[in-house]
Amino acid sequence: MKLYDSKYAPNPRRLRVFMAEKGIECEKVELNIPKGENLTEEFLSINPRGLLPTLVLDDGTVLDESVAICRYFEELHPEPRLMGSDALSKAQIEARQRQMEFDGLFPAAEAFRNSYPGFAKRGLSGNQGEVEAIPELAARGKASVNRFFENLNNHLAENQYVCGDSFSIADITALCTIDFATTAARVAVPDGLDHLNRWHIEVSARPSAAA
Amino acid sequence: MKLYDSKYAPNPRRLRVFMAEKGIECEKVELNIPKGENLTEEFLSINPRGLLPTLVLDDGTVLDESVAICRYFEELHPEPRLMGSDALSKAQIEARQRQMEFDGLFPAAEAFRNSYPGFAKRGLSGNQGEVEAIPELAARGKASVNRFFENLNNHLAENQYVCGDSFSIADITALCTIDFATTAARVAVPDGLDHLNRWHIEVSARPSAAA
Repeated sequence: MKLYDSKYAPNPRRLRVFMAEKGIECEKVELNIPKGENLTEEFLSINPRGLLPTLVLDDGTVLDESVAICRYFEELHPEPRLMGSDALSKAQIEARQRQMEFDGLFPAAEAFRNSYPGFAKRGLSGNQGEVEAIPELAARGKASVNRFFENLNNHLAENQYVCGDSFSIADITALCTIDFATTAARVAVPDGLDHLNRWHIEVSARPSAAA
Repeated sequence: MKLYDSKYAPNPRRLRVFMAEKGIECEKVELNIPKGENLTEEFLSINPRGLLPTLVLDDGTVLDESVAICRYFEELHPEPRLMGSDALSKAQIEARQRQMEFDGLFPAAEAFRNSYPGFAKRGLSGNQGEVEAIPELAARGKASVNRFFENLNNHLAENQYVCGDSFSIADITALCTIDFATTAARVAVPDGLDHLNRWHIEVSARPSAAA
């Protein structure tokens, strides 16, 4: 098993944290996305979309999409459960996981991609050719991330974790989103979001957060 | 069980097709999104994000996110399997389902939302306040949808379905994406995409496609 990885990008980190929670290790190949190492002929022959993370199994089968790779490991190594244990909890965790992506991670990625000078002609991730950045989209993304912070803070006022009483993949997506938003996308968490900060300190203290 | 639905929007249709494949029926409440019926105080008290589809179970539990609701039904009514049967097929179908969303449905939605006059101040879906449309994003979305059509055609040249040898949720997402893109978002399928057309005729002929 070989994992094509990238240290500073949020999607590869989501998978690394997930694997660390389950104690799964594997060989890693580090690719630098700003340098375009995910768009070489060699890597596109493995994943034509040019996206990371990408996992290659021992028989050569290629899996992409971070959440789909998480699903693979969840099925093979169910404990600790990070994607639910019955129909309802599986659906609830998937819904909140997707909310963290669509309301938080995607706008943060839009804010970053459309303002980082190195991506001025790489406005979309992966192998989509030359796409001009859209500065208005960076501004819209930052505003969305601010709403995301506020909404998540309100949710965490009454919930220990992003979905119910236990740590799940939804927390992992939220953690990687916040850390990416506040560093790469330069959107600070507003003052006074005490519940968000309480939760962030708690999940960041898990050994998996260093993965 | 009560399903908050919307006839012409692609996400509610994905769920209706999925349920039809499994023979699941339930009470439906139709909401008109352009008229803002998803943003009333009454509906936001059920789903604060204002998104459709939203399912309310008999005990009052609320589930949102179309794919998460599909997961709920897949777990409760496994046959016919639409989300895979083992670790690898579950992961592969989830990866392709997400690819259909991110490479096709989301750009089609961007193309529509940022060009439809009624959404000039509703540039983002659901309950996100007044957000100005970005015309450049409509153009970018259309270009992405064209790449999506080409890539899917190439894939279907060598595969009967979007993921392997059987119909799955990935086909449902692709079908709803194409029909939404070619009608609401007004992006025509380019001439000569014979494999895409072969597949589209085949999946459109399934009784579930009328759902």
